[in-house]
Amino acid sequence: MSDHEAPATEAPEDVENAPEDADKARQIAELEDAWRRTAAELDNFRKRCARDVVRGREQERAAVATSWLPVLDNLERALEHASSDPDAVVEGVRAVLAQAVGVLADLGFPRRDDNGRAFDPAVHEAVSTVSGAGLVPGTVAQVVRPGYGPDDKILRPAAVVVATRAS
Amino acid sequence: MSDHEAPATEAPEDVENAPEDADKARQIAELEDAWRRTAAELDNFRKRCARDVVRGREQERAAVATSWLPVLDNLERALEHASSDPDAVVEGVRAVLAQAVGVLADLGFPRRDDNGRAFDPAVHEAVSTVSGAGLVPGTVAQVVRPGYGPDDKILRPAAVVVATRAS
Repeated sequence: MSDHEAPATEAPEDVENAPEDADKARQIAELEDAWRRTAAELDNFRKRCARDVVRGREQERAAVATSWLPVLDNLERALEHASSDPDAVVEGVRAVLAQAVGVLADLGFPRRDDNGRAFDPAVHEAVSTVSGAGLVPGTVAQVVRPGYGPDDKILRPAAVVVATRAS
Repeated sequence: MSDHEAPATEAPEDVENAPEDADKARQIAELEDAWRRTAAELDNFRKRCARDVVRGREQERAAVATSWLPVLDNLERALEHASSDPDAVVEGVRAVLAQAVGVLADLGFPRRDDNGRAFDPAVHEAVSTVSGAGLVPGTVAQVVRPGYGPDDKILRPAAVVVATRAS
């Protein structure tokens, strides 16, 4: 923060018995100066703010990217056993997937479980419909591709099959 | 942007032949007003800037997180064949790893290839040393864990084994 001090550089008080004219001229000069300094500060601040926003984004990008490095490391580790033991790879990759889902949750975007929920176009993307016994019309019958993020901050809506009344 | 117009609300010119005192008093009132408005604008701008930085970070976090969703989708897809064909899983996971490396590169953090490069503590983290025929002392003999990001914007240094002179 720069040293903006509007209250401290208050307009000068009238000085009793001083020649009115000279006093007012001084007051005008001081006010002009105070005003110009504040305007210059506003100008500087605009420029700095634009830089702060850019830098904030860069920091965030790096931080989020960093949170994915362990996922990549473990994916590579899982593949190291590829030739000797493919089954071990499958186990390892399952663990990595769970880890990746955890990273997204930590970033504020937990994986959604929309199965059986009432269909809501705000958080669901209908890819097809299905009808059948045991299905409640207007609910999500199947999640084709999971969504991420809470209802009020959806990162990606779930692609779902919606149950409809049999026609 | 709000309507900051410092140049437009310039201090009033002296009006010829008008009573000097009343003129100066008006000038003072106008200057005080202009100054106070600029100061208020500066204050508002400070608050808005803080909000802009926070919002910029949130947008960046969501954008970067979104770029990883295809990696998760493909990881899941690769695992769908797990029981029937473990070898296909391995192939699929290799492709996902390459995709993940691509996501990091797109974010500005390409995977580094530090093998054989001169050891540089700014971009390398030495985890051990090795000496032997064919190894150039002071170079990276082996990358234990890859680094990401260009030299001037390292996301994570590479963990490396450094070649040393045989003792």
